[in-house]
Amino acid sequence: MAVKTLSFFEKLRRTLIGAPIHTARAHHEKLSPLLGLPVFSSDALSSVAYATEAILLILILKGREALSLQFPITIAICVLIVIITISYTQTIYAYPKGGGSYIVASDNLGTTPGLIAGAALMIDYILTVAVSISAGVAAFVSAYPDFHPYLVEASIVLVIIVAWMNLRGVRESGAVFAVPTYGFIVGVMAMLAISMWKVHVLGMPVGAQEVLSDKAGKEASFLLIFIALRSFAAGCTALTGIEAVSDGVQSFKEPAAKNARIVLLRMTGLLLVMFIGIGYLSQHLPKLLLYTNKNPEYRTLTSQIASFAFGPGSIGFLYVQFATMAILVLAANTAFADFPRVASFLARDGFLPRPFARQGDRLVFHNGIIVLGLAAAALVWIFQGELDRLLPLYAIGVFTAFTLSQAGMVAHWRKLKTPGWQRSMAINIIGTVLTGAVAIVILATKFFEGAWIAAVLIGLVFGLFKAVKVRYLAMAKQLAMDDAPMKLASKHTSLLLMPRVHKGIVKALNYAKTVDPNCIAMHVTLDERTLPQVRRDWDRYGLGVPLVILNSPFRSLIRPVLDYVDELREQDPDQMLTVIVAEAVSSKWYQRLLQENVAAQLKIALAQRRNVAVTSVRYFLD
Amino acid sequence: MAVKTLSFFEKLRRTLIGAPIHTARAHHEKLSPLLGLPVFSSDALSSVAYATEAILLILILKGREALSLQFPITIAICVLIVIITISYTQTIYAYPKGGGSYIVASDNLGTTPGLIAGAALMIDYILTVAVSISAGVAAFVSAYPDFHPYLVEASIVLVIIVAWMNLRGVRESGAVFAVPTYGFIVGVMAMLAISMWKVHVLGMPVGAQEVLSDKAGKEASFLLIFIALRSFAAGCTALTGIEAVSDGVQSFKEPAAKNARIVLLRMTGLLLVMFIGIGYLSQHLPKLLLYTNKNPEYRTLTSQIASFAFGPGSIGFLYVQFATMAILVLAANTAFADFPRVASFLARDGFLPRPFARQGDRLVFHNGIIVLGLAAAALVWIFQGELDRLLPLYAIGVFTAFTLSQAGMVAHWRKLKTPGWQRSMAINIIGTVLTGAVAIVILATKFFEGAWIAAVLIGLVFGLFKAVKVRYLAMAKQLAMDDAPMKLASKHTSLLLMPRVHKGIVKALNYAKTVDPNCIAMHVTLDERTLPQVRRDWDRYGLGVPLVILNSPFRSLIRPVLDYVDELREQDPDQMLTVIVAEAVSSKWYQRLLQENVAAQLKIALAQRRNVAVTSVRYFLD
Repeated sequence: MAVKTLSFFEKLRRTLIGAPIHTARAHHEKLSPLLGLPVFSSDALSSVAYATEAILLILILKGREALSLQFPITIAICVLIVIITISYTQTIYAYPKGGGSYIVASDNLGTTPGLIAGAALMIDYILTVAVSISAGVAAFVSAYPDFHPYLVEASIVLVIIVAWMNLRGVRESGAVFAVPTYGFIVGVMAMLAISMWKVHVLGMPVGAQEVLSDKAGKEASFLLIFIALRSFAAGCTALTGIEAVSDGVQSFKEPAAKNARIVLLRMTGLLLVMFIGIGYLSQHLPKLLLYTNKNPEYRTLTSQIASFAFGPGSIGFLYVQFATMAILVLAANTAFADFPRVASFLARDGFLPRPFARQGDRLVFHNGIIVLGLAAAALVWIFQGELDRLLPLYAIGVFTAFTLSQAGMVAHWRKLKTPGWQRSMAINIIGTVLTGAVAIVILATKFFEGAWIAAVLIGLVFGLFKAVKVRYLAMAKQLAMDDAPMKLASKHTSLLLMPRVHKGIVKALNYAKTVDPNCIAMHVTLDERTLPQVRRDWDRYGLGVPLVILNSPFRSLIRPVLDYVDELREQDPDQMLTVIVAEAVSSKWYQRLLQENVAAQLKIALAQRRNVAVTSVRYFLD
Repeated sequence: MAVKTLSFFEKLRRTLIGAPIHTARAHHEKLSPLLGLPVFSSDALSSVAYATEAILLILILKGREALSLQFPITIAICVLIVIITISYTQTIYAYPKGGGSYIVASDNLGTTPGLIAGAALMIDYILTVAVSISAGVAAFVSAYPDFHPYLVEASIVLVIIVAWMNLRGVRESGAVFAVPTYGFIVGVMAMLAISMWKVHVLGMPVGAQEVLSDKAGKEASFLLIFIALRSFAAGCTALTGIEAVSDGVQSFKEPAAKNARIVLLRMTGLLLVMFIGIGYLSQHLPKLLLYTNKNPEYRTLTSQIASFAFGPGSIGFLYVQFATMAILVLAANTAFADFPRVASFLARDGFLPRPFARQGDRLVFHNGIIVLGLAAAALVWIFQGELDRLLPLYAIGVFTAFTLSQAGMVAHWRKLKTPGWQRSMAINIIGTVLTGAVAIVILATKFFEGAWIAAVLIGLVFGLFKAVKVRYLAMAKQLAMDDAPMKLASKHTSLLLMPRVHKGIVKALNYAKTVDPNCIAMHVTLDERTLPQVRRDWDRYGLGVPLVILNSPFRSLIRPVLDYVDELREQDPDQMLTVIVAEAVSSKWYQRLLQENVAAQLKIALAQRRNVAVTSVRYFLD
């Protein structure tokens, strides 16, 4: 593309966003399992940074003793992880082009379940960004407590930075993603190994564990089973992101399905090791702090284990904090790739405004990125970055989408009956029932804590999809060509707005005569005193075009034009009118401040009148 | 005016601002001296609410003893007031149509002094609003100290309310102004009388005056004469607003000049009595608090005297506080009438953008009101409503304008030589010298405290006037008609943007053929797959108009159109091109969110290309 002249805003835009990228450059990288892991697993793996803590923060409400339930609950969640992983290996083979929940549910269950899955996913991606960024900042603040007062501001700035990088079009490049993901895995594994060695070989912690919390026993009167289920629901945030691999099968090198399956299994393996390890060690720390991240004394659980393993403030400790923050930011980044893609599918199908389906000149769905960035920043702001208030909203969307996707797979097998379908269907039935049950547990136990907000939002988004579709169908119906005769304008009149005679007006007059030899000029009298001069000038330069004088008792330039246009339209409702405005163009923006944009004002004012077009004929200064 | 249909925004606008007012309703009220006083004196009289305090707050810097200088300084300022009053009676007779400083200085001294006076006045009106509103809120907070933390917020809200009332077009109605102004005069006079009675008849204060201040002796090492001059400069804020009557002679009943003179003399009399009274009593209060209004312990001097006269928290005390606040708000309101009027004079003469000279449909210069409101609110925000930081900026503009106006009168008399001109000129020479000297004293003594900011702003505004004039002259020169032959378009081609065939496009196609029988349709290929359908439809409905297919490798709808337009322009640079866009119009705003405004985007993108017009042909849905 030969770029001739760039406007100021185009230059600014290119500096911020970059130059356009050719369509041919789309989808160039195919991933090996080694590079596929970091690309698709940041969301799932990073959740170990907050899931165990979320479990403990609920249990402590019942009291110090309830903390012993944490390990059994962790194991129960791990069983769930294994079952869901097996279920998703099915999807990978059935949908080698990518089987996101929206597609699987729409394909097999119909539009409404598909839309519910889509709405649930979109809400969840927003929460992924808000939660991951807030948790990332919490990891940083655990290392540098002086920054605690700026938690909210830092989170919002991070959201903006990630959104901006995505608007520039960060490619899902395996090499770039590999560093933080493998860096995090190595750090956490080393931390777990050293801690285990200290606990079991050195036998360091002596005596009972000291637990500090401002929430201990706050809900001691609740039933233990309810608190246990609630903490289980809280821990289910560890499952978020597990579906990512099956969404992106097409990104893998051939054999794509096989490679994707390898990545999924490795990811689950790593997730289990880290999740169980952190859960186990949380019970063996000599001292355990359980505060919410609103409290200035707050330290993440991971940071406490890292501090135990490597020593407070050591290089190893700082390494784990930064690696945790990095993978959490990467998880947020993944949502910035997924949300706009789901939105583009929905827009392509007519359930969201079309602009969401349009790829910008950087090959990204920029509208989806902007909406996600704004929504996530708003969420961080509203909840003041407090993880314990954000997390109850999370996971409900994921499990809704899981359930619908699994149910879709059941329908898929029953329909296709490919070899071995009974076994596959059985796996997906188990998956459906389990994830469905967990979804109900999450909604029931966290309802008043905030799950209701997520449920309402999902409902609203679903309603939005439906409303958009209805509108697009109505528009298409009205615009569809049929054989009924169309009523077209019988006559065309052009009206030139003429404030005073100058070279720009002469140009516009010439144009008006070209498009309509019988055009009319209009002069709005804002100052009676200038009228004789206007008439004299017009007699001399007006090329014989009639000049209509419009009085303006309310000093408006627009109103008399509207009234005159209405008068002409009443005389002949079928005629087409073109209002022509001469507009000065200065080369510098500050010079433009001295001009009034009459054409734009007229266009807005005439917006609701049929058969009226507004044309601005520009004349250039300098 | 028959209003047919009002858009949502027009309805909102009318609710907030009111329905248009007919030009014939302008200037209906002529004022008697009794009603003229409240209209023109609020600015001058209200300054007694802070002037004495400003003097004391400077003197205390030198130490407790320096406070005794306050009364001599007050008397010196009173002498200045008398001389300036006499000078302005001259102006009233010489300029019966209203002799603002800008007009008097421009008329008699030339453009540059006139513009300096204009710039000084405009900066001073902004400060009048900021200072008066901050002082008004200070009066309120003195009565209700619980509101002290909301000082800045309350001030900004008040600025917005006053601006909004002025946008609605509050007329300078004497009756409405009379209540707060006379209410304030009565309240202060009663307060002074009772205080005098308590001091001299009852002999209440016994022993030495107790003075509490956090500033006492802070600049004790400075020369006494410097501190004295600085406090004199601070007290000169009492003179602001004294020129108001001479600006508005035309508003008085006949004999206008005589009535205006009566009002000016009465106003000065009242000002002197209140200013001397407050100054005298400040030395006789048993206890004197001298804090800045940033301090939560702050009480205005007037409130301390009121408390002494009527008793703390009494009805009389509260009455004085509310009356003070009311007249200060009125003073701010006066600036909202004066600033836009001066701006309109300057815009009419081409020194400010033309929109400042346009009266809105409520008969007010709305652009001036908005600019003043924003500037004053910004000032309050920047200085956090702190009077002792705002006041040093004040008065420098007034005295610059005074000096130029007086000097203009000297030139006036020398030129006209009307009977008795020598005496008049002598008076104005004294006025010029005195006000000029005071201006220098203010600038010199308050320079580093903030007067430099006012001086820089006046310089910048002056530069703006010059730059605007230069630009308008350049524009006028370029657009002026001359006998040189103009190069006009030789040919006209219209280009229809055609995304896909529907009824709206058929309408636009019909229009395109009307304005140019040889028009061309353009289709931008965003999705290769739809191309065959587009071609088939065009063959059937395209009325034989040629269809050009434009590829879009960067997925932009706009770029290929620009490139094609550039190609046509290269072929024949003299032809005129019209790009026609079919635009859907929905009846509800939320429906409009589903449409892309391609016409507006194209218009912006084509803005820098000569001989290209953009026309949008609308089709209506529903």
